[in-house]
Amino acid sequence: MEILHETAAGGRRAQLHLPHQTVQTPFFMPVGTAGSVKAVAQEMLEALGAEIILSNTYHLYLRPGHEAIRRMGGLHRFISWPRAMLTDSGGFQVFSLSELRKVTDEGVRFRSHLDGSSHFFTPEHSMDVQIALGADIAMAFDECTEYPADRARAEESLRFTMAWARRSLDHFRAQRNEVVWREELGGRTQSLFGIVQGGMYADLRRQCAERLVAMDFDGYAIGGLSVGEPRELTLEMITEVLPLLPRDKPRYVMGVGYPDEIEQYAKLGVDMMDCVLPTRAARHGLLFTSEGRMNIKNKKYAEDQNPPDLNCACPVCRRYSRAYLRHLMQASEALSATLNTIHNLAYYLGIMERVRSELTAH
Amino acid sequence: MEILHETAAGGRRAQLHLPHQTVQTPFFMPVGTAGSVKAVAQEMLEALGAEIILSNTYHLYLRPGHEAIRRMGGLHRFISWPRAMLTDSGGFQVFSLSELRKVTDEGVRFRSHLDGSSHFFTPEHSMDVQIALGADIAMAFDECTEYPADRARAEESLRFTMAWARRSLDHFRAQRNEVVWREELGGRTQSLFGIVQGGMYADLRRQCAERLVAMDFDGYAIGGLSVGEPRELTLEMITEVLPLLPRDKPRYVMGVGYPDEIEQYAKLGVDMMDCVLPTRAARHGLLFTSEGRMNIKNKKYAEDQNPPDLNCACPVCRRYSRAYLRHLMQASEALSATLNTIHNLAYYLGIMERVRSELTAH
Repeated sequence: MEILHETAAGGRRAQLHLPHQTVQTPFFMPVGTAGSVKAVAQEMLEALGAEIILSNTYHLYLRPGHEAIRRMGGLHRFISWPRAMLTDSGGFQVFSLSELRKVTDEGVRFRSHLDGSSHFFTPEHSMDVQIALGADIAMAFDECTEYPADRARAEESLRFTMAWARRSLDHFRAQRNEVVWREELGGRTQSLFGIVQGGMYADLRRQCAERLVAMDFDGYAIGGLSVGEPRELTLEMITEVLPLLPRDKPRYVMGVGYPDEIEQYAKLGVDMMDCVLPTRAARHGLLFTSEGRMNIKNKKYAEDQNPPDLNCACPVCRRYSRAYLRHLMQASEALSATLNTIHNLAYYLGIMERVRSELTAH
Repeated sequence: MEILHETAAGGRRAQLHLPHQTVQTPFFMPVGTAGSVKAVAQEMLEALGAEIILSNTYHLYLRPGHEAIRRMGGLHRFISWPRAMLTDSGGFQVFSLSELRKVTDEGVRFRSHLDGSSHFFTPEHSMDVQIALGADIAMAFDECTEYPADRARAEESLRFTMAWARRSLDHFRAQRNEVVWREELGGRTQSLFGIVQGGMYADLRRQCAERLVAMDFDGYAIGGLSVGEPRELTLEMITEVLPLLPRDKPRYVMGVGYPDEIEQYAKLGVDMMDCVLPTRAARHGLLFTSEGRMNIKNKKYAEDQNPPDLNCACPVCRRYSRAYLRHLMQASEALSATLNTIHNLAYYLGIMERVRSELTAH
């Protein structure tokens, strides 16, 4: 990571040199769960300026399978995405989507939400799967502590996360050069980030951060936020942890957030964020605009020929009207999800572009 | 219509000067039922070279309503499509989609397939709706004779079609200058095409064609084909009717067809065709390629990294693999319909482009 500017508030403007792309930070990653940012083609993501997207290890492991993806040259080639990618560890989906989970020190046994088949994920297995997928950044296998969780539960959960972080790192260090594109990219290889957990307990968070930093990961994420807690708690956890993370490594807050949140966190020194919100909300007709949230299904837009956002120059706002977007939703047209998602992603990516330029100006 | 070349077989290479676009013939029209070619954005249709698309009067009449569309400046503006458009008369959908139809000399009473509400369509009403929508080409209100239909039924059905053709034309001639964009486009206005019916009875078809030609429509369609009859019958009806139609007016075969059909008919002198086949089949994973039909769901494509069609330069074949398209279908990703449809439309539009150049070379 190459830091270009820093602000008194801790904000950083930097470049992250990843094997497939040098990515300008701070950035927001569109979520491409199963190897597709839902309803949007890769060429549009490029046109919108997305330099990195996230895919979910759990989904790709179940379908089409990481070995198939490895045989096809890795995830970049499989989905025809030449820029940077990040895969999560699969942990979060194992806990949120799968059935009949059983957690032991060794790992997690679970049933697929697709066909009920039984699977066992360990830190080592998550690393193997992520190395097969070959994203630029892989994530340590962790347990995302639920909210609310009492102190005993948060401590127990953190024990898993800490033990698994160590095993993730050891296994990853031994195997990372197995990634299929290594030779093609001049010997560059994947990064592994550790994930700070600890529920909503500041001391557990600090303890976790310090121990992960001692392990020397390539970057650090703060996980287990935006899981239902009030915004003040989210912010408190972030501000407790950030100062403990090394200046020269990327800092990633997972699963956030609303437009004002991503701006706020970026200005505090968070380099990376991701969230399904802009894409998922789009499919439900919720648009983020410079004038606030807009429910495009609302009858008042039935004959409104203005673009969704009067201050937006995205391909949707340049061409289509609120009335047409409303009609597409009313008529359950597939194009509805596509256009709504393009706008919301343009809005999110635009926020980050503006924040990057503001960070440079300071 | 400006004829550029003609072949001994009757094929014609021409230009159709429509208010919004000069369209090269023969052409195939992608179907945009409810104001959207399903899953494909207008800018992609332009990039694929579509110069004219079709929308369904029945769907737009029910939702969002033709008066709303008129108030918004017409269909072109509502859906942000600057090139040519054609609307059907609504008749076919009234007969195929709606419930509790009752046909009288006056018109058709039916219930909406959306909410069960009762509606009455007459030739005059169909014209009013189509003038409000303001496509470049409107179609006479007809009854699409079902297949099979015995002679008595075909004659009865044709009686409706003939009487309604007259009333459509009279009403359209009196009202066509009401189209909202007339002034903006220097006084140019809509065209109205008559529709030849007559079931599978060659003499009824000829009789219908002759009477419609005497009425002097702006163009002529052959309807009621591709309704379940064998291909030889389709071809027979087309070859019976084509010689009776005036040389200097466009000839449109509605609702066809497979790739080899559209090529065959175009070379016989059909100038215009439309069909849901390429778009609908795409959503079910059926791709049309230079090597025949491909069911992209087939397991044999699971790790096939070739483009869908080795001889295709469409945006999908240039970027994505069979394995990825198969995965998108397996995972029920919205992008699946989009990419499959783009390829199939590129394939259909490519056929017509090749046919146009072959017609010129003769």
